[in-house]
Amino acid sequence: MRYLSPLDAAFLRMESARTPMHVGAMMTFRLPQGAPRDFLQRLLARMRKHPFMPEPFNCRLARTRWSRLAPAWEQTELDMDYHLRHSALPYPGGERELGQLVARLHSHPLDLSRPLWECHVIEGLAGDRFALYFKAHHCAIDGIGAMRMVQRWLSEDPQDPRVDGPWVVATRADPEPPRAHTGLVERLRKPIAFAGRQIRSLGDLAKALVQMSQGEDSSVRAALAVPRSLFNVPVTQQRRLGTQILSLQRIKAIAEAVGASTNDVLMAICGGAIRRYLLEQQALPEKTLLASVPVGLQRPDGTPGNAVVGFVAPLGTHIEDPRARLQLIHRVTARAKQELGAMPPDALAQFALLGLSPLILGQMTGALPKLPPLFNVVVSNVVLSKKPLYLMGAELEAMYPVSFLFDGYALNITLVGYCDRVAVGFLGCRDAIPHLQRLAVYSSDALDELERAVQAQPARARRIRTRRRH
Amino acid sequence: MRYLSPLDAAFLRMESARTPMHVGAMMTFRLPQGAPRDFLQRLLARMRKHPFMPEPFNCRLARTRWSRLAPAWEQTELDMDYHLRHSALPYPGGERELGQLVARLHSHPLDLSRPLWECHVIEGLAGDRFALYFKAHHCAIDGIGAMRMVQRWLSEDPQDPRVDGPWVVATRADPEPPRAHTGLVERLRKPIAFAGRQIRSLGDLAKALVQMSQGEDSSVRAALAVPRSLFNVPVTQQRRLGTQILSLQRIKAIAEAVGASTNDVLMAICGGAIRRYLLEQQALPEKTLLASVPVGLQRPDGTPGNAVVGFVAPLGTHIEDPRARLQLIHRVTARAKQELGAMPPDALAQFALLGLSPLILGQMTGALPKLPPLFNVVVSNVVLSKKPLYLMGAELEAMYPVSFLFDGYALNITLVGYCDRVAVGFLGCRDAIPHLQRLAVYSSDALDELERAVQAQPARARRIRTRRRH
Repeated sequence: MRYLSPLDAAFLRMESARTPMHVGAMMTFRLPQGAPRDFLQRLLARMRKHPFMPEPFNCRLARTRWSRLAPAWEQTELDMDYHLRHSALPYPGGERELGQLVARLHSHPLDLSRPLWECHVIEGLAGDRFALYFKAHHCAIDGIGAMRMVQRWLSEDPQDPRVDGPWVVATRADPEPPRAHTGLVERLRKPIAFAGRQIRSLGDLAKALVQMSQGEDSSVRAALAVPRSLFNVPVTQQRRLGTQILSLQRIKAIAEAVGASTNDVLMAICGGAIRRYLLEQQALPEKTLLASVPVGLQRPDGTPGNAVVGFVAPLGTHIEDPRARLQLIHRVTARAKQELGAMPPDALAQFALLGLSPLILGQMTGALPKLPPLFNVVVSNVVLSKKPLYLMGAELEAMYPVSFLFDGYALNITLVGYCDRVAVGFLGCRDAIPHLQRLAVYSSDALDELERAVQAQPARARRIRTRRRH
Repeated sequence: MRYLSPLDAAFLRMESARTPMHVGAMMTFRLPQGAPRDFLQRLLARMRKHPFMPEPFNCRLARTRWSRLAPAWEQTELDMDYHLRHSALPYPGGERELGQLVARLHSHPLDLSRPLWECHVIEGLAGDRFALYFKAHHCAIDGIGAMRMVQRWLSEDPQDPRVDGPWVVATRADPEPPRAHTGLVERLRKPIAFAGRQIRSLGDLAKALVQMSQGEDSSVRAALAVPRSLFNVPVTQQRRLGTQILSLQRIKAIAEAVGASTNDVLMAICGGAIRRYLLEQQALPEKTLLASVPVGLQRPDGTPGNAVVGFVAPLGTHIEDPRARLQLIHRVTARAKQELGAMPPDALAQFALLGLSPLILGQMTGALPKLPPLFNVVVSNVVLSKKPLYLMGAELEAMYPVSFLFDGYALNITLVGYCDRVAVGFLGCRDAIPHLQRLAVYSSDALDELERAVQAQPARARRIRTRRRH
């Protein structure tokens, strides 16, 4: 038996029918040229035989007297036919049908009496493709851990004789973590451990929250300035999923022209899409919407689990001009990164707590949708790989993380860099966000607009960039 | 707002993650000859436009201060894209893949914040067929009500110009209830209402249970003689579904030869299949397993809901000879029916309570799997139609009710008579009954055995029949 860390246990306690705390990912693959008709059957047979989920996914939650106070993992037999599932899309098998199926699968809570994962191999995707969707509980793995797990399943070499399935790759040495924020990660490691210890109980949580709301520089106090938006409502159990692919080259060209980072450009695109969506719904707040941008940290012992801090950045939804929106986002995130790097460890601990503890406390007491929002929407951004990846010779086309929602936070946006493109996934509450796919469509339009705006004023862009550099 | 009846409310209170209280049905259809390629799209489009679920499926549970004590229905908008779903089977699209998909869909609890139903149109069934699966909460409809609803969706005439979908049929006058136990039904109507009043509270339930266990003729005391079997264990959330089709003509021939009812023969077949399964598992109890046979009653006001009594009959699993097994079953059920008909109303009320209240009480207090089993397995038997039925010109091939499990009762068998066949559905707890499909296979073998045993001794069979008639 191995006890869950306090933070992992908190994710378990936050589980409710309306806010199941599992994360997932949807991947689409191209069938290899000349693939045999039973390619998926062979893939499934191999996956069934060889374990491809790391610890603790061969365990279930122990049923002890203390399991609520101090949950622990215990080894169990894996019922592979239960966890590994063969599914199919109805006609015409497009992205719409795939999004619908995955949204339905993602809306069901995991069975907490079994190992906390499911994996679906999905056939019937148009264009000689197939899809893979998995879900796993956030108490056992965080977004970065899930990303690393997927990386271990895949190979850069379609012909690699060792690579005839995820299990072979899983035995290799771990690849590099997807992002190398090494300096910052090192600085934050200790505070995260500290923060984890602080939230052992609801009482401690409440105390920390009160402390954080005192003083001039209180981030909690600042959060009172966050506008309520239609994304900040109680969520129901059902989800919608919208997807879009953007060209990384075009995004980089805009970033270069304005002297911003690709992340800034992506935030500006999200801001543009959200602005148009809210205008249409006649629900655009006067102030800018704020995004929470989580930063994942590797654990000291390398085990999967949760170690997350976040900072809050504006999406510039109050600005009509796409270029001015991008410039605002760039100014704020540049300063935030600088401040984060300069913070003393104790302040960082507070900062780390800010990212989660108000949410944890609010979720567990049911107060979250009634509190003023601490931010409006979660936007996370990771890089999967710059080279094409393969599963048993089938090329990965795109990967979309499918995350979870907190009560009062009905929209989550994930951005995944892969090869020459960025896959954008919108996960929303079915009832709060009726036409979610529009956000996906508008994000493509927002890229067009931003490109036009930047091309119209290239000279000024260069001047700003030069000034920032000196 | 309309309040749920006490019995309907009890089914709502019994809902738990491990024992969701919804019932369902799986139907397979043959595509009409020369059906257009978009037949299912057209069916879905029509179903989307026209309501096909009766009251209260256009309602959701009201969110009031008293909703736990006195739940009520309130009108709501139907989000048809949520409730009506297009699904597909993976290759090869056989009965196995269909059973797996439906078992998975049936394992998920309904979202209690929405109208309590889902309907899946399933494509990809081999042999130019498709399937339909729906689930609905038992607090809103009982098995008989569900059967009548299905009958309203279907037509006996494939060419009926009015019948281009379930909605048109839904506006016609109600057809006859599937079984015409009129004398018995009339007798039981009042006691059922009385029983419903008695179980308004847990305290009343406990009192009734104690009373019922006193006295010489106590059915509860008799229930202490029920053997524990591997079916009588705590259930987990996940289900398995096994299906089989039997020839009604062969069953009738056996019944005729022995002088028993077709229901007796079906019970003997179930007993034979269960005996072989338990022998294989080295878990056959010395005493016979007992089946609870629910009898559904029409409500006085004709609204859907729950009105169920049940009697307990032996399955003869302790007898090796198939013929002797059938004879035992016939003797006991004949006497039970006679006694049921002769009971005074007050005793009938007690009897009606026996069918459910110990289960309701046990389920709500969590004591059910710890109490000695009151019976071993539920076996219900209904007649759908003697003539072929059609949905938008597609012929119904078979219908399998997919029921629910109580804690401690991990197997449920349903038998549906339709045209010249009986569809047998086995619903089991995934963990308690590892090779459920074997029961389906063995039930076909049990019919063969019984047929051989009866053919070997036809003369003696006639003698018994004659004796019983005088």
